[in-house]
Order: sequence, then C-alpha cells, then structure tokens
Amino acid sequence: MTRVVVDVVMKPEILDPQGQAILGALGRLGIEGVNSVRQGKHFELDVDDNLDDETLTRLADTLLANPVIEDFTIRR
Amino acid sequence: MTRVVVDVVMKPEILDPQGQAILGALGRLGIEGVNSVRQGKHFELDVDDNLDDETLTRLADTLLANPVIEDFTIRR
Repeated sequence: MTRVVVDVVMKPEILDPQGQAILGALGRLGIEGVNSVRQGKHFELDVDDNLDDETLTRLADTLLANPVIEDFTIRR
Repeated sequence: MTRVVVDVVMKPEILDPQGQAILGALGRLGIEGVNSVRQGKHFELDVDDNLDDETLTRLADTLLANPVIEDFTIRR
C-alpha cells in the first residue's frame, strides 16, 4: 500500500475569493507579514503499490481537479 | 518572501463523506487499486521571511483549520 498525495490549486489567473477572505481576516486578528493566501484541495489516497502514474493522472484529472480552472500535483 | 504550505486534513476518526463519494465514483470510472480517499484543504501563503513559526501556527489553528476535527501540517 502506498500513500499518494494530490494537491489541487486554482490556476494563477483564476480569482480565489476564499483566499481573499482569509487574507482579510488576518488583519482583524492582528497578524502581519502575510502577503497572499490561495486555497486549494488536498487529497490523501491509499493505493496499491502497482497502480501506475497514468491511472493516477487520469484519476486526478477526472475526479479530483477541474482542469479548466485548476492545476494539480501528484506526490508518491 | 517565503512560500509556506499548510495542509489541513480531517482527524482519522472523523467521517469524510467527500472522500467516500470520490471512492464510490472510482468504481464507476473503472479505476481499481485505490483503497481509501480522504479530502482536506491545501493553502499556499506568501509570507515575509521573518514571520515566525509561532505566528504561523496561530494563523493555521485559528483561520485555516478547525482544531476540534482537523489536523494541520505546516511546510516552509
């Protein structure tokens, strides 16, 4: 069994209102020094050792991310 | 400027219906070999180089995660 992590983030040109809301809340908490916040999704998968990269990419591209507006990275 | 990544995941004993839904969809896509899926949140922050770990932990604990049901990890 292998642990695979897939991180999905909005493409840089796509607005991220959740990140903007967090950035606004930081000021009210009195935390300075944060210049940008982007929110994405994080998936942890337990997969069989012989699951190939092509299948993982198809899985991420189909189920986990919307490739029109999101990028993803896969880490084994 | 430093890029900091915060990953937030549900504690293991908390049910994850989104992960369960993805696992169910895998079967319909014909993808085998995935045994478990857990969905969390992924944050990318651009922070000043001198922002200390204590402040980052307070930020994650207050704004990014709900410590009652979620765990988080911080990577610089």
